[in-house]
Amino acid sequence: MGVLLNDGIVFGSDSRTHAGVDNFASFCKMTVFERPGDRVLVLLSSGNLAGTQAVISVLRQKASVEGGPSTLWTARTMFDVARVVSDAMREIDHRDKQHLEKNDLTFNASFILGGQIRGEPMRLFRIYAEGNFIEASADTRFFQTGEAKYGKPILDRVLDSTTTSMDAAKCVLVSFDSTMRSNLSVAMPIDLICYERDALEVRKRCRFAEGDPYNKTLIDRAAASYKREARQL
Amino acid sequence: MGVLLNDGIVFGSDSRTHAGVDNFASFCKMTVFERPGDRVLVLLSSGNLAGTQAVISVLRQKASVEGGPSTLWTARTMFDVARVVSDAMREIDHRDKQHLEKNDLTFNASFILGGQIRGEPMRLFRIYAEGNFIEASADTRFFQTGEAKYGKPILDRVLDSTTTSMDAAKCVLVSFDSTMRSNLSVAMPIDLICYERDALEVRKRCRFAEGDPYNKTLIDRAAASYKREARQL
Repeated sequence: MGVLLNDGIVFGSDSRTHAGVDNFASFCKMTVFERPGDRVLVLLSSGNLAGTQAVISVLRQKASVEGGPSTLWTARTMFDVARVVSDAMREIDHRDKQHLEKNDLTFNASFILGGQIRGEPMRLFRIYAEGNFIEASADTRFFQTGEAKYGKPILDRVLDSTTTSMDAAKCVLVSFDSTMRSNLSVAMPIDLICYERDALEVRKRCRFAEGDPYNKTLIDRAAASYKREARQL
Repeated sequence: MGVLLNDGIVFGSDSRTHAGVDNFASFCKMTVFERPGDRVLVLLSSGNLAGTQAVISVLRQKASVEGGPSTLWTARTMFDVARVVSDAMREIDHRDKQHLEKNDLTFNASFILGGQIRGEPMRLFRIYAEGNFIEASADTRFFQTGEAKYGKPILDRVLDSTTTSMDAAKCVLVSFDSTMRSNLSVAMPIDLICYERDALEVRKRCRFAEGDPYNKTLIDRAAASYKREARQL
């Protein structure tokens, strides 16, 4: 999930793949493209791992060619970055489509993209599997992908125009916990980035593994406070 | 949703039908069969309204015949009551099945059944559309039907062996609010019953309409406390 706030953007991703109960594994779903002082681009992956990994690899390869056409490094705006990601997704879809269709599969990879380019405000996008995308605004500050329902109410209730990125980060951890209690396809470790507005570099990045004491304390305190409130309301 | 606690059972249901955005309407989904001193049976309906209403009507008609075979009034145990409901569901399914299939529809009605018969402990069941059913226990104290995901985390966090039915009732209202923020197929009024263990009659039943001041205060206070906690955690 990605949350756009006045003072920054919070990015959080779990690490479980794939969605079945058998042969599950752990992969980081958070990718950062960073040139300090110029741009920070964060991509959160969702859906079929072969698809999302291929998209990231295409993006990396194209970006590594000096003076190539529009890439993550040369895109002028975050909107243009979203288009670069979208183009890479459509390239993979085009390559794999007919082969996936033989087994009734589709390219179902999607992304949350956020960050900032120097001279532009921070921006946050949700890019659908088809490559079209929407952008977060004051009305809707956050995007989730994958299993979104269990974790949405806490975000709905807590996030508003006054929320700081540090408070939102805690809220993201509680939201993931809500989902992980009910859906085995979402699991620790949780990767978290708190991007600070205009920093143009990533200063706060953490990974919370299973049993992490900070995360456990946070979740236990949240549960205790909910129970206390239920009694007092 | 139905919640089985040590001191009672809490039943809550919304009133919106059907699940599309067009031509929605309001119907009470909570039905009570009560003979004070002998039994309280509460049925919460979910799914296709024609199906659930037909099942309730069959149950009522059979129960109104004095000395008829096994009915809601003559069933000896809550398990037997669940079987009576299940039989009525299968009767309707049998009658409607081939007609629904013409339009690729199925009998998708399901129920939450709870209550108490004199001499028996309180019991709570979830009856699937196929007529088979499961029973709540200390490990899993609550059942939801319909759009269950948004409202589940608050129940997961708050309900435990020490929760009173009054606290659980507030929790149920907050849970419904979580769902109603995200899914238009769930809406006020909310019907709520707090059945007290061994009362063998319904003493606390309320309906919360849109804008109900108690419910609004509860939801506002819950939201405020979540925000405060996010800052303090």
